[in-house]
Amino acid sequence: MVVNCAAYAGGRRVADVSIEEIGQALKQDDRFVWIGLHEPDAGLLGQVQLAFGLHDLAIEDAHRAHQRPKLERYDGSLFVVLRTAQMNRDQRRIDFGETHLFVGPRYVVSVRHGASLSYADVRVRCESMPQLLGQGPGFVLYALMDFVVDHYFPIVDALEDELEALEDQIFGDTLSRETTRRIYELKRDLLEVKRAVSPLVDVCNRLIRFDLDVIPEVTRPYFRDVYDHVIRINEIVDNLRELLTSALEANLSLISVSQNEAMKKLAGWAALFAVPTMIAGIYGMNFRWMPELEHPLGYPLVMGVMLGACGFLYYQFKRSGWL
Amino acid sequence: MVVNCAAYAGGRRVADVSIEEIGQALKQDDRFVWIGLHEPDAGLLGQVQLAFGLHDLAIEDAHRAHQRPKLERYDGSLFVVLRTAQMNRDQRRIDFGETHLFVGPRYVVSVRHGASLSYADVRVRCESMPQLLGQGPGFVLYALMDFVVDHYFPIVDALEDELEALEDQIFGDTLSRETTRRIYELKRDLLEVKRAVSPLVDVCNRLIRFDLDVIPEVTRPYFRDVYDHVIRINEIVDNLRELLTSALEANLSLISVSQNEAMKKLAGWAALFAVPTMIAGIYGMNFRWMPELEHPLGYPLVMGVMLGACGFLYYQFKRSGWL
Amino acid sequence: MVVNCAAYAGGRRVADVSIEEIGQALKQDDRFVWIGLHEPDAGLLGQVQLAFGLHDLAIEDAHRAHQRPKLERYDGSLFVVLRTAQMNRDQRRIDFGETHLFVGPRYVVSVRHGASLSYADVRVRCESMPQLLGQGPGFVLYALMDFVVDHYFPIVDALEDELEALEDQIFGDTLSRETTRRIYELKRDLLEVKRAVSPLVDVCNRLIRFDLDVIPEVTRPYFRDVYDHVIRINEIVDNLRELLTSALEANLSLISVSQNEAMKKLAGWAALFAVPTMIAGIYGMNFRWMPELEHPLGYPLVMGVMLGACGFLYYQFKRSGWL
Amino acid sequence: MVVNCAAYAGGRRVADVSIEEIGQALKQDDRFVWIGLHEPDAGLLGQVQLAFGLHDLAIEDAHRAHQRPKLERYDGSLFVVLRTAQMNRDQRRIDFGETHLFVGPRYVVSVRHGASLSYADVRVRCESMPQLLGQGPGFVLYALMDFVVDHYFPIVDALEDELEALEDQIFGDTLSRETTRRIYELKRDLLEVKRAVSPLVDVCNRLIRFDLDVIPEVTRPYFRDVYDHVIRINEIVDNLRELLTSALEANLSLISVSQNEAMKKLAGWAALFAVPTMIAGIYGMNFRWMPELEHPLGYPLVMGVMLGACGFLYYQFKRSGWL
Amino acid sequence: MVVNCAAYAGGRRVADVSIEEIGQALKQDDRFVWIGLHEPDAGLLGQVQLAFGLHDLAIEDAHRAHQRPKLERYDGSLFVVLRTAQMNRDQRRIDFGETHLFVGPRYVVSVRHGASLSYADVRVRCESMPQLLGQGPGFVLYALMDFVVDHYFPIVDALEDELEALEDQIFGDTLSRETTRRIYELKRDLLEVKRAVSPLVDVCNRLIRFDLDVIPEVTRPYFRDVYDHVIRINEIVDNLRELLTSALEANLSLISVSQNEAMKKLAGWAALFAVPTMIAGIYGMNFRWMPELEHPLGYPLVMGVMLGACGFLYYQFKRSGWL
Repeated sequence: MVVNCAAYAGGRRVADVSIEEIGQALKQDDRFVWIGLHEPDAGLLGQVQLAFGLHDLAIEDAHRAHQRPKLERYDGSLFVVLRTAQMNRDQRRIDFGETHLFVGPRYVVSVRHGASLSYADVRVRCESMPQLLGQGPGFVLYALMDFVVDHYFPIVDALEDELEALEDQIFGDTLSRETTRRIYELKRDLLEVKRAVSPLVDVCNRLIRFDLDVIPEVTRPYFRDVYDHVIRINEIVDNLRELLTSALEANLSLISVSQNEAMKKLAGWAALFAVPTMIAGIYGMNFRWMPELEHPLGYPLVMGVMLGACGFLYYQFKRSGWL
Repeated sequence: MVVNCAAYAGGRRVADVSIEEIGQALKQDDRFVWIGLHEPDAGLLGQVQLAFGLHDLAIEDAHRAHQRPKLERYDGSLFVVLRTAQMNRDQRRIDFGETHLFVGPRYVVSVRHGASLSYADVRVRCESMPQLLGQGPGFVLYALMDFVVDHYFPIVDALEDELEALEDQIFGDTLSRETTRRIYELKRDLLEVKRAVSPLVDVCNRLIRFDLDVIPEVTRPYFRDVYDHVIRINEIVDNLRELLTSALEANLSLISVSQNEAMKKLAGWAALFAVPTMIAGIYGMNFRWMPELEHPLGYPLVMGVMLGACGFLYYQFKRSGWL
Repeated sequence: MVVNCAAYAGGRRVADVSIEEIGQALKQDDRFVWIGLHEPDAGLLGQVQLAFGLHDLAIEDAHRAHQRPKLERYDGSLFVVLRTAQMNRDQRRIDFGETHLFVGPRYVVSVRHGASLSYADVRVRCESMPQLLGQGPGFVLYALMDFVVDHYFPIVDALEDELEALEDQIFGDTLSRETTRRIYELKRDLLEVKRAVSPLVDVCNRLIRFDLDVIPEVTRPYFRDVYDHVIRINEIVDNLRELLTSALEANLSLISVSQNEAMKKLAGWAALFAVPTMIAGIYGMNFRWMPELEHPLGYPLVMGVMLGACGFLYYQFKRSGWL
Repeated sequence: MVVNCAAYAGGRRVADVSIEEIGQALKQDDRFVWIGLHEPDAGLLGQVQLAFGLHDLAIEDAHRAHQRPKLERYDGSLFVVLRTAQMNRDQRRIDFGETHLFVGPRYVVSVRHGASLSYADVRVRCESMPQLLGQGPGFVLYALMDFVVDHYFPIVDALEDELEALEDQIFGDTLSRETTRRIYELKRDLLEVKRAVSPLVDVCNRLIRFDLDVIPEVTRPYFRDVYDHVIRINEIVDNLRELLTSALEANLSLISVSQNEAMKKLAGWAALFAVPTMIAGIYGMNFRWMPELEHPLGYPLVMGVMLGACGFLYYQFKRSGWL
Repeated sequence: MVVNCAAYAGGRRVADVSIEEIGQALKQDDRFVWIGLHEPDAGLLGQVQLAFGLHDLAIEDAHRAHQRPKLERYDGSLFVVLRTAQMNRDQRRIDFGETHLFVGPRYVVSVRHGASLSYADVRVRCESMPQLLGQGPGFVLYALMDFVVDHYFPIVDALEDELEALEDQIFGDTLSRETTRRIYELKRDLLEVKRAVSPLVDVCNRLIRFDLDVIPEVTRPYFRDVYDHVIRINEIVDNLRELLTSALEANLSLISVSQNEAMKKLAGWAALFAVPTMIAGIYGMNFRWMPELEHPLGYPLVMGVMLGACGFLYYQFKRSGWL
């Protein structure tokens, strides 16, 4: 589906064009075309390929989706794959999508697949800064990448919150299977975000350093900015992973501590009951000659001894932390 | 065994030739020969070596098999070793095979060992794209590598399914020795896939970047495609390994939690039985003077106390999660 | 807020200037201006940007804060981000702040955010060494970085002390949940210090090696000094992390040892009570014909046997370390 | 001890010489000398040093042994240290030895220390391939390295077998301390093999790539072959180490599972015995008024209740896997 | 304190000089001065700085100590920091010291801090090899580094012995908290040795490879020797660390095994006592109509049943390894 297709000159939108009119629109040298597609079918992609002379392999990638983030260079043009992400708060799940960008000296084509926000906002923002948009397709590439990367910040924030909630659970009193499951799921989410973001380090690096015709020198510092954000997201994710590993170990440690406590409680109470049971057993024996049994104070004395022993044990166990 | 041997010119199959006729077939400058062998004996390999002037060491490797994936350059020709893999669903096992490719300016020789699909499909697909096949042996090399690498995707999918099944088992109720064994076996499979695929990262890199005569410039982007797939398989495998490590830890953690629960249940029920047993023991003592024993309501009262104590303990243990 | 703004010539402070007078102050070729700002608002930053022609992106970074430490080069000037840290001893917490430095051939601008000491001390120290300050803004950059980095030493010292306290707790007798929590929190602090300091390795490296106009050759060895300190802090932190991992494992190990001991104590005492209880049970049976019951010495003998058995068991358990 | 000392020309042995005659033997330009020494004393080494002008430091290394594998270049000659290994099947131990090779344009000196096979076989094999031996000392170096490296394959096979045996033990029923000890010892063996083989990756790399006079261009591919073997041994060892780590974890996991089962069995049987004991205790009380005691069916009924309760519990525990 | 200060020419000591006479001593072109200082005060360092024109930063480092090992180049001279180590066998502790070396074309200054042997031995050894000492300050640097590095061998030997002692403890019968503590302390020692030695890899590398005026070409191979020793110490330490990790895991594993055994013993004995106690309880019931009680053989039969049950259980438990 064609979401948007416009021609720009000198940083300003000069015309809305249809796919068919692109050739016409590009006749004027100072113009470039910015097309936004959403899950296009093969036919539409074919038209676009024809219009700009895109490489077969890149088109195939854009059609199939499920690529990893990458930057590829075909003659004078760039093909960029980005993974987009959105927090699905209802189901506590991250939805991932994919965006493919074809950037040539006089065109930008964005192809969205799966979960992602519309890039209409990016277009509006770019159009409000004509002096920057005037730098051409390279700046549009920056604006789109910046938009995609910035949308990872709320996600890593949510993952940080989740870790904090887990810490509270681990170091709180409740010890549940649920904690372990959530640690595992957080680990899985982190790995997926990592996979989506970490290849961008290399992509940005190449955009900053390599001699790419479509990125004018003046646009480079902007990619350094994206690079910085990618590095930061990466760092936060690595940090969370390392903390999560420690949290898992702390969890295991505390489960053992708790088991220790249960064991000691078990031992303590067992001893506390065993003593009077044993004494009672002794005076339940049927020997003919057991003088204590005959004595009128035998019963209260034995009861006293039992209570005393239990009390003494209870005090001892309490003091040494077994009960 | 010679599976197939044909001469190509301008991207089209021009003749089926026998090993003996190769010299004849190559007399015309625009032709190249594509030979497919399956577990050839020393004699056949010798003939092929002679026909194309292959290096002793490469032939030795191709004969012995059990090489690791690699790319070697001998003067003007390339020697590529690939590991092929097939899921053996009956025995839940991955079968590995090996393919050796000799690629020169005017020949491609593929030598299959062990489990692998026939490359007849690749040949058919290549012959249906004459404009690409016209790029010569370099494109055939791509087509074969692409075929081999793409067959790893169903395998890593199966491994991903296995991990999901394991997760269900770990976080489900059942706690069995079997789970640990399957985690271990999945780890072993992952390591083997890793060993088969990861050397290809370097192989592809060299095919893309280095100045190799047999790979024309126009064929390079295709190897970038294979490279991409290899990287993706690698990433999935690494991801699975890291998740598996977490799964193992989660498993250990949950075993401990379950032990904790068993321990608490044990302690709780022990206490529940110990109390009436102790009381009964006391009133089983044979003291002459025990007024409670004489009282007509003694028995029902004591029974009431027992029941009350047990009920109270049961309620307490339930509330604190020990039972 | 403008904390300080002065012009320097030949290593000496020649005039205090306001932001508005900067243009005036720089008319003399041998002068440079050193400005200290504290959490400036957008307006003030705008003035400074205008005065020195700073890049939009750098100013944006300086305004938003929450950057990672980095060094960026814009034409003839440098933009440096540092993370500052202060031990908050009351709350046993490390407070982090941020400092941004703009360094050009004839100006240094420092922008402080969050927790950090004032750089007034640095200014005083620099002014007391005119021959060094005479090297220009490059030396001021060194002095500020040195000051920031040196303030990490008391922090890593405090973390080392914390680890020692934890070791005492782990290998001492007390086994508490608190220990695990503190290990975890120390780990988190270490990770944060690491994140603040480790990017400086690369920053210093570039300041030492790259050809940067604002760093005169004679100032380079001073950055090597900062580099050394950064490496040392990094090493200490890595060391602490590795020791902490071992400490966590040792902790887990000792929890298990302690559980083992509790288990053995439980088993030992259970056996010690079970024996007389069993014997007493036997002589509590109501068989008509039990000769021992009739014997006058039956009771004392059985009591003797009970005591003897308990004594023997107690001795055995003591010897083998179960009690 | 001099094991063998011969002069070669054109790939054929032309004369057996003594150490003293070396000078004489080398007078003819096309000859080179190949000497095999076994644990030589200082005097003999001195003679050899003198004959070929070897460097003091290399001779010192060769005398002291206990070097790590390395390749050093002294002017026109090479000094190579290899670690040799032999499986000592009786004592289930790997014996390591050391071989030092001095390779110059016209000589090869091998010095064996400790456990290693004689290189007589290598000499015989070389002499049977005159066209290859004619490449000179470089080819002899290859032949010796190939021999040493190939003897690591049976060792890593034995280690693989050991791991399989351990897997059977771990996942079998038997749970013993012995398993843990053997895992640890296998780990130690793997580390030692790793240390002996992994430096050879770098050594081979330099022999393949660097411009070394004593290695003619035509001999290079042979070192690539050794390189391949070294990489494969390294990979197998790394693989085994990673599997071993998993095996250790699986072992720990299964110990815990087994503990869990023991715990549940303990709890189950304890409950099974506690119920009738409690009931018996109740009817052992001496209350005057306990109507059940008077009833003729009291005893059989109570026995029935006991059996019923035990049966019910047994069934329940069996069903839930506690017994 | 000045320990020694002498002028050398042609590899021979020509004069003992005082700090004041250095200028005089260096007037002759072929001479160099070798000074040994021990914890000098600021004044003495100042004199030395003046005499040779040393850099402020290097002097500051030498005064403060607590540097990490490093090599720094100041114009024509080198500044080397080494960490020295000595085994303190009484307190089973490693004492670390520091040595700073200033090496110029015509001087060597060594500054010792903390625990370290005197370098008098090095001086004696050097003076006994005039042909080597004649290579100048570069050779003295080698001799000092070699001396420092070689003194790490007895230390790593001691650490290896400690690990072996720990292995005996772990796999022996005794299971103690002490073992865990010693593992931890060994880990700490290893980390400290690592930190002292590993930076020397890079230092040696630069001394071997970089073009440093003060190291003549002929002296280079000697630094390769030091490099080799450093690599070996590093390898041994890494090896020990990895083994230690496995030892810790094996320890944890064996603690669990031991716990398992205790648990089974507990369960076994509990069952063994529970059976007769239960039977005795049954025949201790006060039912009027219990025919067994009346039978003259009731008592011996029941006792026989008890013994038989216990015997049977004991045999079963023994067979299955629970007792």
